[in-house]
Amino acid sequence: MGCVQSFREICDRQKNTNVRLSLPAVCFVWQTAMIILFGVFIRYNEESDTHWVEHRKANNISSDIENDFYFRYPSFQDVHVMIFVGFGFLMTFLKRYSFGAVGFNFLIAAFGLQWALLMQGWFHSLDYTDGKIKIGVENLINADFCVAGCLIAYGAVLGKVSPVQLMVMTLFGVTLFAVEEYIILNLIHARDAGGSMVIHTFGGYYGLSISWMLYRPNLDQSSRLQGSCYHSDVFAMIGTLFLWMFWPSFNSAITDHGDGQHRAAINTYLALASTVLTTVAISSLFQKHGKLDMVHIQNSTLAGGVAVGTAAEFMLMPYGSLIVGFCCGIISTLGYIYLTPFMEKHLKIQDTCGIHNLHAMPGVIGGIVGAITAAAATESVYGREGLVNTFDFEGAFKDMVPTRQGGHQAAGLCVAICFGIGGGILVGCILRLPIWGDAADDNCFDDESYWEVRDEALHDLGGVQQKTCLLWK
Amino acid sequence: MGCVQSFREICDRQKNTNVRLSLPAVCFVWQTAMIILFGVFIRYNEESDTHWVEHRKANNISSDIENDFYFRYPSFQDVHVMIFVGFGFLMTFLKRYSFGAVGFNFLIAAFGLQWALLMQGWFHSLDYTDGKIKIGVENLINADFCVAGCLIAYGAVLGKVSPVQLMVMTLFGVTLFAVEEYIILNLIHARDAGGSMVIHTFGGYYGLSISWMLYRPNLDQSSRLQGSCYHSDVFAMIGTLFLWMFWPSFNSAITDHGDGQHRAAINTYLALASTVLTTVAISSLFQKHGKLDMVHIQNSTLAGGVAVGTAAEFMLMPYGSLIVGFCCGIISTLGYIYLTPFMEKHLKIQDTCGIHNLHAMPGVIGGIVGAITAAAATESVYGREGLVNTFDFEGAFKDMVPTRQGGHQAAGLCVAICFGIGGGILVGCILRLPIWGDAADDNCFDDESYWEVRDEALHDLGGVQQKTCLLWK
Amino acid sequence: MGCVQSFREICDRQKNTNVRLSLPAVCFVWQTAMIILFGVFIRYNEESDTHWVEHRKANNISSDIENDFYFRYPSFQDVHVMIFVGFGFLMTFLKRYSFGAVGFNFLIAAFGLQWALLMQGWFHSLDYTDGKIKIGVENLINADFCVAGCLIAYGAVLGKVSPVQLMVMTLFGVTLFAVEEYIILNLIHARDAGGSMVIHTFGGYYGLSISWMLYRPNLDQSSRLQGSCYHSDVFAMIGTLFLWMFWPSFNSAITDHGDGQHRAAINTYLALASTVLTTVAISSLFQKHGKLDMVHIQNSTLAGGVAVGTAAEFMLMPYGSLIVGFCCGIISTLGYIYLTPFMEKHLKIQDTCGIHNLHAMPGVIGGIVGAITAAAATESVYGREGLVNTFDFEGAFKDMVPTRQGGHQAAGLCVAICFGIGGGILVGCILRLPIWGDAADDNCFDDESYWEVRDEALHDLGGVQQKTCLLWK
Repeated sequence: MGCVQSFREICDRQKNTNVRLSLPAVCFVWQTAMIILFGVFIRYNEESDTHWVEHRKANNISSDIENDFYFRYPSFQDVHVMIFVGFGFLMTFLKRYSFGAVGFNFLIAAFGLQWALLMQGWFHSLDYTDGKIKIGVENLINADFCVAGCLIAYGAVLGKVSPVQLMVMTLFGVTLFAVEEYIILNLIHARDAGGSMVIHTFGGYYGLSISWMLYRPNLDQSSRLQGSCYHSDVFAMIGTLFLWMFWPSFNSAITDHGDGQHRAAINTYLALASTVLTTVAISSLFQKHGKLDMVHIQNSTLAGGVAVGTAAEFMLMPYGSLIVGFCCGIISTLGYIYLTPFMEKHLKIQDTCGIHNLHAMPGVIGGIVGAITAAAATESVYGREGLVNTFDFEGAFKDMVPTRQGGHQAAGLCVAICFGIGGGILVGCILRLPIWGDAADDNCFDDESYWEVRDEALHDLGGVQQKTCLLWK
Repeated sequence: MGCVQSFREICDRQKNTNVRLSLPAVCFVWQTAMIILFGVFIRYNEESDTHWVEHRKANNISSDIENDFYFRYPSFQDVHVMIFVGFGFLMTFLKRYSFGAVGFNFLIAAFGLQWALLMQGWFHSLDYTDGKIKIGVENLINADFCVAGCLIAYGAVLGKVSPVQLMVMTLFGVTLFAVEEYIILNLIHARDAGGSMVIHTFGGYYGLSISWMLYRPNLDQSSRLQGSCYHSDVFAMIGTLFLWMFWPSFNSAITDHGDGQHRAAINTYLALASTVLTTVAISSLFQKHGKLDMVHIQNSTLAGGVAVGTAAEFMLMPYGSLIVGFCCGIISTLGYIYLTPFMEKHLKIQDTCGIHNLHAMPGVIGGIVGAITAAAATESVYGREGLVNTFDFEGAFKDMVPTRQGGHQAAGLCVAICFGIGGGILVGCILRLPIWGDAADDNCFDDESYWEVRDEALHDLGGVQQKTCLLWK
Repeated sequence: MGCVQSFREICDRQKNTNVRLSLPAVCFVWQTAMIILFGVFIRYNEESDTHWVEHRKANNISSDIENDFYFRYPSFQDVHVMIFVGFGFLMTFLKRYSFGAVGFNFLIAAFGLQWALLMQGWFHSLDYTDGKIKIGVENLINADFCVAGCLIAYGAVLGKVSPVQLMVMTLFGVTLFAVEEYIILNLIHARDAGGSMVIHTFGGYYGLSISWMLYRPNLDQSSRLQGSCYHSDVFAMIGTLFLWMFWPSFNSAITDHGDGQHRAAINTYLALASTVLTTVAISSLFQKHGKLDMVHIQNSTLAGGVAVGTAAEFMLMPYGSLIVGFCCGIISTLGYIYLTPFMEKHLKIQDTCGIHNLHAMPGVIGGIVGAITAAAATESVYGREGLVNTFDFEGAFKDMVPTRQGGHQAAGLCVAICFGIGGGILVGCILRLPIWGDAADDNCFDDESYWEVRDEALHDLGGVQQKTCLLWK
């Protein structure tokens, strides 16, 4: 008896979910570091500085409406909703991990966007005259994009890691993101407006690799909590729909002014519509009585938006967008039906939200579609100026041709995959250290580990009963 | 005993909700058809094409910000939210049909908008030089509008039809919509910015006629499920509020640039505010203890936005908007209290969401308000140029005068009603065929017919008990 | 026995929650008054009138995109979402007052914005040539802002007052708001873009003073209902996130075109991000096992947006925003832990939503930050023109200097506090009259007082049981 107890104590010590010291310490120290680094490095750019009025006159800009703010702010707010409500609520589907889903998503996004402003700033927005990073609305969008990569990764480990681990994952994720983004966009000169490669492929494989490193052989001990209840599925639909509706803004947020933003929005709108129909078709076809599965509707309907990300700004043509969406709805839903169980059983990758089907695979498809579309671009379709503008064949790359651009796109995709897998394994090693306060195998997917849960009904009940009665909520 | 069983078997065969073949077949075939038709017909318009930069220079457009994208995209995204979250969540009020509400809404909207781009394109955006439909952001908005008509109709038959029936309803609904819209806007030259006639009147009567054709005399067998529970009512308020908040964008999305959009937004904002107060007043006044009814708050508060749709771009004046909203809040709420039960009992129209009170009646009022406001327009109020711009007295209609325009508006309203009722009866006939997989009378309003529902608690219980325990969710 | 009964009857008469006459009467009469006043006073301004096209030509405005509508409409819609979904859902956290939270919020906001258009119009938008108030999109935003002040006050008395009392509170609240706003912005010439002083400080102290006047010594009789349940906490997160995400639009909605809006959005975005981390840190640090408290995450994460309101348009610098957010997360969370219980016990202020921690204190901090930032402004940082534009050193105030502006800012803060406390005490006196239909002490926080609640499960149970079973919802 005493033996069992002492064994348990050791276990409890090993798997102590008390983060009372580590979480506040991480938050305080890192936030303080952010303040110092922002103080040293970050300033307003010329469009958000009070000197704008002089800049405007000096550059013959006729009106305040030409400030980049008015081109991008509506899209920025839509992207912002996707990051916090979209990703946050999409993960509330678990019957007893809604606080963790929406709350930790909130925490790591809020930290990640600060770190992203710095990391991306050093690579892209550094003003060499005074050594400062100059930020405007486009930087805010890019910071949100960068955070999206980490939130995708969170989907793979949802319910199995502590908030401290998530912070570490975000710190490294943002850092890796900024580096791979610089390599792909600037050195390789690939185009990736909606981030199929840079965001989704990277984020997907990053999360899957971490999940592989943190494999829990006895996770079935938490299986009673690893499912949805009726209302948690409806909450998750809030996330799905806000992601789905605002994805045209996501893919068009940082594309070229004018036709670039316009075309990216149209392509994404169409791809997503097409995905919904094939997702429904496959979901119904592969269930015994033709019933639809909410998991597919919540997730696979979004795959078209991921897959059209890279090519959204190209002349993909409306029917091209529909075809991309058509294929991705099928592939993503089949992934949920066959691939996710296979990966858990044989590859030891436990993917809570199925990010492989929603982000990693469609991201790779998106990269390939982008490469093909770029390689097939012709002056007759794009027009001379259109070709140069769309693919940015200027400066050091003024001699590029579409076919070569296609090769560069493919190279960019490879870099994203490598960074995702490599970075994930590295970070996974760090997260395996027994110091982070993650829950024991029989205690995953449970908000009570990290949240005050007040439902009095629960306190009247004890032990295992306590968990099964959650179904009544 | 064997007799009873064989009878039941026949019933089950007649009312088999298994859509495992029909639903995937419809989705795949129709989506493939969309891809082919899009390939043949649909291209980017000059503002979303890479040739925009040349077009801009040729037309002396000084800045990318003049691209229609920046005039309409914020409104488009708001309308998009209304279609998917607004309509979807508004219908989640039923205690056990939330998946169907939000999920089937998602499916038919995603299909409908593709078909709408084609149908409306053939009528309005066909470029006769090359036989292609050229699309931009305004077409996306119009496609969403067209879909709204079908989603309104869904409200009348919510919980009583199969997803395959909904797809058929949407296919015909969009087709009829495009034709009546062309007749009303182009041939009759009525103005209908917010679609009081074209969207709400048509959609309302279309749905009511279908519901009349599909009358279920024994629907009370499902009465245990035809109500809300506490949390499903809160979910429905998400739909209500997003519709209410973004209605100014709905009514101003395709009005004239500049003052047209500005005025439409103001009028709608005011009409909706006024409606809330009279809805609350009537709801409280007609209940025994003055208690408010969530059904009224969820629905009637929106009637003002419907009724101000046609006249929103006219010089309705702020007080005029308030008056419209004032009246509609009263009429719509009284409709829920008296008319809906009357229609069900005596006219055999079972209207699940009360779309007659929220869309059909206010739509008709909106058409009348539009006719009166147009007929009363004067040059002293509008200014010479303002009159021509607002009513589009140009081209073939350059000799129109306001009084005659009022007559045309009234004619437009009649066309909308006729198309709604006629089309609904026609489509209702088709939907009565016993091949569509709709549920039996005692099995309506139940997600388990078409969705995998995982609540384990339910599986421990059997028979009727299973249904009544839903209240605990 | 008869004695007890007659005593109860008196109590019931005193505390009769039947508002069947008073609520409809207030709604009808006040809405009718609005129509009349709008008819007499309110017209479209030159940018929303059909004469815009002539105005445009006369003023050499090159394009419709220069209409203020396109500068402010996206922000307006975001603010609108904050008012109705943000404030509404933030208050749904109570397990059995979600209808009242979101429904009464809806009612009073819809009334308040009409009255605000009039009150603010008389002070700010009166055209002296014809005695009319000319409205455009900026007036709609300001009306929403004005309403925000009253909704903040609602947070303090949530669950303890009747809808009629809320209407009275809003009528006086809007009136007081318009007066203090005029004094602070026009007479004192303080700047307050995001309304730290004008909206949050005023609204906070207004609500707290009313709550103090309406102190209920026996409120613990309703303590069984004064808490959250699992799903109501998730609903509240919808409110939190929409407030958090759209706060940059709130603070930038009415700032100067161009860099003013741009900078305000950036500062708010950063301050809010910083607040999240310190809120999490303090929440975890002060709980026994380091568990996070949803109350803090739902509320304190927003404090940074409040505190950066005044200074958002100034050159606060990105790191300055982070510092403001850092401090406010700490102060606000500590407020929930220590100050709210203290105020309830010793100061007799029962603050249901903790608005003192979310609005009043951060509002005061925001006022102070604004004063310091203004006083520290220099021409070298702002540029000559930038300084004049940002602080509006024009007209009667063309001789102002930053240091004096700092003093004026501080004076503005004092006015806001005085109006809040004074107005709240006055209105609280009125609301203590026993005619308003508020609930008895043992019946607070219960939707059944004012709403038809249909959960059948409840009707099978009686007495106290009825209340405790709510936990199962």
